[in-house]
Order: sequence, then C-alpha cells, then structure tokens
Amino acid sequence: MDTDNRNSLREGTLYSFISATFKAISQVILIENAVTGLLILIAILLSSIPIGFIALLSAFISVVIGRLAGGDKTIVNQGLLGYNSVLAGIALALNLEGGMRWVIALAGAAVAALFTAAMMHVMCNAKIPVLTFPYIVLTWFLLLASYRLGVFQLNPGLVPQDLSHWKLHSEGTPNLLHGLVNGIGQVFFQDYFWSGIIILAGVFWAGWRLGLYAIIGSVIAWLTAYGLGAEVSPINLGLYGYNAVLTMLAVAAVFDAKSRFAPWTGIIAAILSVPVTASLDTWLLPFGLPGLTMSFVLCTWLILAARKILPNL
Amino acid sequence: MDTDNRNSLREGTLYSFISATFKAISQVILIENAVTGLLILIAILLSSIPIGFIALLSAFISVVIGRLAGGDKTIVNQGLLGYNSVLAGIALALNLEGGMRWVIALAGAAVAALFTAAMMHVMCNAKIPVLTFPYIVLTWFLLLASYRLGVFQLNPGLVPQDLSHWKLHSEGTPNLLHGLVNGIGQVFFQDYFWSGIIILAGVFWAGWRLGLYAIIGSVIAWLTAYGLGAEVSPINLGLYGYNAVLTMLAVAAVFDAKSRFAPWTGIIAAILSVPVTASLDTWLLPFGLPGLTMSFVLCTWLILAARKILPNL
Amino acid sequence: MDTDNRNSLREGTLYSFISATFKAISQVILIENAVTGLLILIAILLSSIPIGFIALLSAFISVVIGRLAGGDKTIVNQGLLGYNSVLAGIALALNLEGGMRWVIALAGAAVAALFTAAMMHVMCNAKIPVLTFPYIVLTWFLLLASYRLGVFQLNPGLVPQDLSHWKLHSEGTPNLLHGLVNGIGQVFFQDYFWSGIIILAGVFWAGWRLGLYAIIGSVIAWLTAYGLGAEVSPINLGLYGYNAVLTMLAVAAVFDAKSRFAPWTGIIAAILSVPVTASLDTWLLPFGLPGLTMSFVLCTWLILAARKILPNL
Repeated sequence: MDTDNRNSLREGTLYSFISATFKAISQVILIENAVTGLLILIAILLSSIPIGFIALLSAFISVVIGRLAGGDKTIVNQGLLGYNSVLAGIALALNLEGGMRWVIALAGAAVAALFTAAMMHVMCNAKIPVLTFPYIVLTWFLLLASYRLGVFQLNPGLVPQDLSHWKLHSEGTPNLLHGLVNGIGQVFFQDYFWSGIIILAGVFWAGWRLGLYAIIGSVIAWLTAYGLGAEVSPINLGLYGYNAVLTMLAVAAVFDAKSRFAPWTGIIAAILSVPVTASLDTWLLPFGLPGLTMSFVLCTWLILAARKILPNL
Repeated sequence: MDTDNRNSLREGTLYSFISATFKAISQVILIENAVTGLLILIAILLSSIPIGFIALLSAFISVVIGRLAGGDKTIVNQGLLGYNSVLAGIALALNLEGGMRWVIALAGAAVAALFTAAMMHVMCNAKIPVLTFPYIVLTWFLLLASYRLGVFQLNPGLVPQDLSHWKLHSEGTPNLLHGLVNGIGQVFFQDYFWSGIIILAGVFWAGWRLGLYAIIGSVIAWLTAYGLGAEVSPINLGLYGYNAVLTMLAVAAVFDAKSRFAPWTGIIAAILSVPVTASLDTWLLPFGLPGLTMSFVLCTWLILAARKILPNL
Repeated sequence: MDTDNRNSLREGTLYSFISATFKAISQVILIENAVTGLLILIAILLSSIPIGFIALLSAFISVVIGRLAGGDKTIVNQGLLGYNSVLAGIALALNLEGGMRWVIALAGAAVAALFTAAMMHVMCNAKIPVLTFPYIVLTWFLLLASYRLGVFQLNPGLVPQDLSHWKLHSEGTPNLLHGLVNGIGQVFFQDYFWSGIIILAGVFWAGWRLGLYAIIGSVIAWLTAYGLGAEVSPINLGLYGYNAVLTMLAVAAVFDAKSRFAPWTGIIAAILSVPVTASLDTWLLPFGLPGLTMSFVLCTWLILAARKILPNL
C-alpha cells in the first residue's frame, strides 16, 4: 500500500509535470489548457521539427526550474512560469544561426523563467500581469549580444538600418484569408497556413468565445493596418495581427474583463496595437530587432492599469 | 420643484463639465483654475484657431471619457485626467501633416486620458504624481508610427540625424525678453510673444507666487543654458525654458513643498533641467523626435521621490 | 563637563563623518568598511591624484547632503547615499575634458546622492536594492548633454558608431593575470595592475569570502567572455570582469543569500552578466556611451527579484 501510494504520487507528479509543460505552451496565448498546448505543439512540429522540440524542451526546463527553485506549485502547474521560456526558446532558435543556437535557446529559456519570476514579484503590488515582457527584453538582449560575441551568430535577415534612409513600400496584393490565419499563427512565429489553423483550433478547444475573440482580433488588425496605410507584405504575413489577437484576448476576455464594455475596450486596444506595432518597428530599426509581442504588452498594460481607475472600461 | 431640481442638476453637471474642461487646460501648467484655463485657451486661439479648437476638444474628450468610464468625480472635475489629452492633441496636430492629423490628434487625446489613468494606478503606491509622462510617450510613439503607416504624415521638420555627424552651432544673438516669455509660452507650444504674455497672466491670476516662480524658472533656464554654452536659437525660442518653468512650479510650489528650502530646491531642479533637456535632445536625435516636457518629468520625479527620504529638500 | 560633552559630540560627529565618507567609497563594491574604503582610495590615488581627490570629495559631498537634507542617519553613516556619488564623480571626471569637468563631476556627485535617495523611495516596496542604477543613468545623461552644451567637453574616445558598420575584431593575445586583476580594479575604473591588487586587498580585509567571490567572479567573466568569442582587448582590460565581480558578490554573498545554492546562483548570474555586458555595448554604440555597471544592475535585480518568488535560488 505504501509502495502503491508512492507510485501514485510519482504518477501524479509525472502527470502534473507533463500537464504543466503543455500548459506553459498554451499560456503563450493566455490559455491554461494542456490539450490546447498539445495542439499548438503539433502545429509547430508540422512546420519545423527542431523548433517544436525547442518549444517542448523550453517549457519543460521552466517547470523543472520552478520545482527545484521552490516556486509556488499552483503557479508552476498553471504554466505561468513557462510561457516566456517557450517564446524565448523559439525566438532565439529562429533568429540565431549555427550549431550553438540550440544551446543558447535553451539557456535563454531557463533565464526567461527566472526573469518571469522576477517580474511577478515586481508587478504584484500593481496587480498587473507580467505578460510576455520578460521574453521580449531577454530575446532583444541576447540577439544584440551577437555583435560582440562570436559564438552568437545573428540571422542575416536582422539588419540594422538608418531611420533617415527608411522608405515605406506600400505596393503589393493583400491576401485576406492568409493574413487573418497568419495573424493567429504568428503568436508562435508560424506563417504556415495549416499551422495557424491548428493553433486556432486549439484556442476554440479551450472555449468558443476565445476562438471568436482571436478571429475578431485578427480581423481588426487587418482592417486597421490596411486602413492606416501599412505595407502589404507584413499584413499578409500576419505581423500586425498577432499582437492584436493577444491584446483582444487579454483585454476582452482574460484579465479583469468584468465590465459589459470589455469587448469594446478589447476592440479599441486591438486597434491601438497596430500603430504601436508600427512605432516599435521604427524604434528598433537602428538595431535591426523584431518587435515581437511588445505592442501587445504595452497596450494590454495600458488598459488593465487604466481599468483600476476607470472601472467601466 | 422636482423639475427645478433636475434643471439645477443638469446645469450643475453642465457647469462642472465646462469647469473640468478648462481646468484640464490649466492643469498642463500645474494649476487647477478654470479662468486660467480660459486665458490659456485664448492665448492659443490667438496664434492658431484650429490648434485652439483641438486643445478645447481634447480637454472635453478627456472629461467625457472620465465620466463614462466611471472615473472618480473629484479627479475628473479637477482636470487631472485631461491635461495629458490637451498636450497630446496639440502636439500631434502640430507635428503631423495632412487632413487626417486632426482625427489622429483627437484619438491620441482619448488614449492619453486612458494612459493617464493607467499611470495614476501604477504610481499611486509611490505617491509620486504622473505629470506629463503619458502624453510624452504616447506622442513619441504615434509620431514614429508615421514611418510605417501611410496615413500618419510626419512634419518634415522632424528629421532623424546621425549623432556622429552632429555639430554644435553656438553663433546668434540672444534675445532676453523674447527668450523669457517664450520659455513660458512653450509650455503650450507657443512662441508668439503675446500668447506667452497671456499665459503668464493666467498663471498670475491663479496666484502671484506661481507667476513669480514661472518667471524665475524661465530666467534660470536662460542663464543656465547661456552659461553652459547652449545654441542661441533654441534659447531664444524658449526651448530650454518651458521645462525649467514647469520644474520650478512643481518643486518649489505645487507638490510637497513644505520645507523652507523648497524654493532653493526648485532652483536647483530648474538648473538641472537644462542639461537634461540638452541630453534628451541627443538621445532622440537618431529618431528626429522633440524632447517635449520629458526633462521636467524626470527632474521633478527625481526631487519629489528624493524628498520622501530627504525631507528638508 | 558640558564642554567636554559637546567636544566628544563634535569628535563623534567628525569621526562618523569621516567613517561615512570612506564607507561610501567601499559601498561601491558592496562593502561597508571604512578601512576597505581607505585602501580603495589609496589604490585610486596611486594611478591618479586628481581622480582620487574627486572620489573623496564626491563621497564627502554625499554625506553633507544626506545630513543637511535630513536623511536617516543610519543610511547616511553606512555610506548608502554616497557610492553612486563616488562613481558619478570618477566617471564624469574621466569621460569629460577641460577645466570645467571637475565642477561638473562634483555637481554630478551631488545630484547622484539625490537620485539615490529617489530610487530608494521608489524601490522600497519591492525590497530590491538600488545598486548603481542612479549613477549610470545620471552619467549617461550628463555625457550626452555635451552634444548640445559647449561647456561639457566629451572625451574624444567616446565616438558614436553606426551598428550596421560594426565589425568584431577577435585577434589579440589574452593575458590571464592582468585580465583577472583588471576585472576587479575596473569596478573603480582602474586598469593599473597594482591598483587592482590593493582594491582586492581591501575586499579581503572586509572578509576572506568576499575576496574569494571577487576572484571567482573575475575568473568566470574571463572564461565566459573568452568561451563566447568576445574581443580580446576588452577581456584584457577587465571590461567584462567588473560587472561579473559585482554580480557575484551581490548574488552569492551580500543580498538575501540565504539559500545553500546561493553561490551557484551567483555563478550563473556572473555568467549571464557577460552577454548582457556585450549587449549593452551594442545598445549604446549609436550614442558612443560606455556600459558602466549596468549589466551588474540588471542581472542582480533579475536574480534578487526572482528569489522572492523562487526562494531556493
């Protein structure tokens, strides 16, 4: 009986370990659901086996660190210490080159878990969620280290440019369907159509309202970006969409969305995320860095903090 | 009687609405006084009718948002949710071009009110005022969005420059009187002499000590900038002055100025604002952005937070 | 007897004044020990008499400000208001030119004391130490003011560079011993071998464990920087080392280091400081600014805040 007990404990632990790992993946899109996490992992593996493994290992590392370092079990099991690790692992593996990038990606995933814990502590008084801020800042820092450290080999696509020589290229044919699906897939750096569809299915699995909000967020980003005269190529790639999708989900459904105006506030926040995305790309141009999910973080923080003072938002 | 009551209520509401709108304008210069707000509006209209209307509408929008979104009535009626909207509206209308700039300015004013509420929440624990931080960051972001969104047309005067090619041009004839008055007028982006005079009259209306401090702040900025070898053209335009004026008012009179050394601390803070203004212009050079009132915000935050630890400041 | 009392009081005050001044110098390397401070001062004087005097005067100014402005006596006497002043004074005197640099250095030291007090207030809720953040930001701001103010003459060694034209130069012969000692000396901007040795002696005086951790920090930085393919010249000058030394001391010994894993966490943080140092140099390249101790501040904040959530770190 004693042995049985211990076995069930182990299984329980193993189960909660696996569950926490998949939830860390689903928390990237603000959902705590292991099945959604598994679907998203399949979507990533479908477009790249190694990146899928990095995502899984990064989530796993975050859970191990959370357990060993004495983190609150509820937080660790909800995957809340791990979604930044998942994103850092994927982003570093995609934006670096050479064999060492896999090691850097996993080391970055480990640091992202510590950074997430640090931000949780700093922001707990304000009662504002950490979101993906740690992953973004960490990824920017590690990518820029490549200019000084030979082992970090930057993807040659990331070229620093002088703002004074920048020109806007608006020509091109917008593709509505691909733009919309990519807007959702790009939350996980996916611009492969079927990967986006499976990720969307994962969101619907967690709740039809969440799926609907994700689609609305992508539609709003598409319309706003097109209406404000953005370049067509990033619209088609979904590069304006993923921040709007995350912002819509966060503001309209996930955090403190008690007001009956919450869906409308979500739409306003999603619209705002488009010029903020455009602006961040400009700030980062001299460094050749991608904006990642920073406009989602900034717009969501803005609304969530404002809600504490203006409760009808 | 019931009808009478309701009428007086409506009038009361209308009155408090109008009062809050004008106070939002006066709060830009740290004063809660509807008459001062009206005088400032006249000063702005004198140099540009459309900009005056944008200022008025921006203040009005902030009050509407504050009311609809359930904000604390005292805060809304004091104009504390609106001064960032007034500045954002004016700054966006002046620094963008084309017909859409009016829409962007008013949308920016609306977001500025939300941003102000958000910052109020974030900073309430530290008991440090928000000042004009939200307007500055919002304006910088929306101006930079113009490099990616065709509808945002940047004023061609805002040119990104390479710091390594920058040269200091110190020649020119300093004009003391215009420099001093512009230093006050530039709080509202005014470099028309009589607009500056009317704004100063508005400050004196709210209190002779405030008027005196505003003049002292402008004199200190003039002397410090000239003494430290700044370029003459920005000195004459009052571009070093307005941050010093606001810093002097904030530190010496408005916030926590209980120590008998407060006026001297105000002078030190006003002096400090000059190199900080110079420095911010350098940080922003690669992006071609104006420093706005950021040096006022930084120097005032520095002193107000230090006062919590060093009470004799 | 009354006179005796007053005399002893005066002497007591004089003694505590001198002690606070030397402790302000030793607090730069996270140690509260007047003898260590004196040894460090001797080490600085050995390489440059004027810089030594600036260090001493900067520390003295911070103590005077702390007393006059009504600061808590314990904090002032521990030198906690002054270490940022010491660093700001040295950094400004070394990175500016011309006769006015001495005045600017001492004025900067005075503002650094206020900035430290301000940050103490802002960070007291999070229970995270201020570290050298105020000195870094202040020095960056005052150095950049030189592009707009003729009186600030920047050291011509600080050249803004375009990131797109940056090339990594890895050739050169690494010098282990000098690299290690410089890694400790550079905490006080010293690359003279014997100055580094005396500073290390001062650290050992305060505690053999601290001395050991300082050496370990320098070794780790050397190995990590070399292993990650950094340029040899900064490695030899100890420019990767001083941040790792400070990070190691802070994380493994000084702040909240109760966990038995604290030394290992210190080593991880010291390793992390190397890519963060590399990255900061890249962020600052367009402005030609030195990274100073920012990577120490960022890595230490990260771990100390994470420890509040993950207590086994």
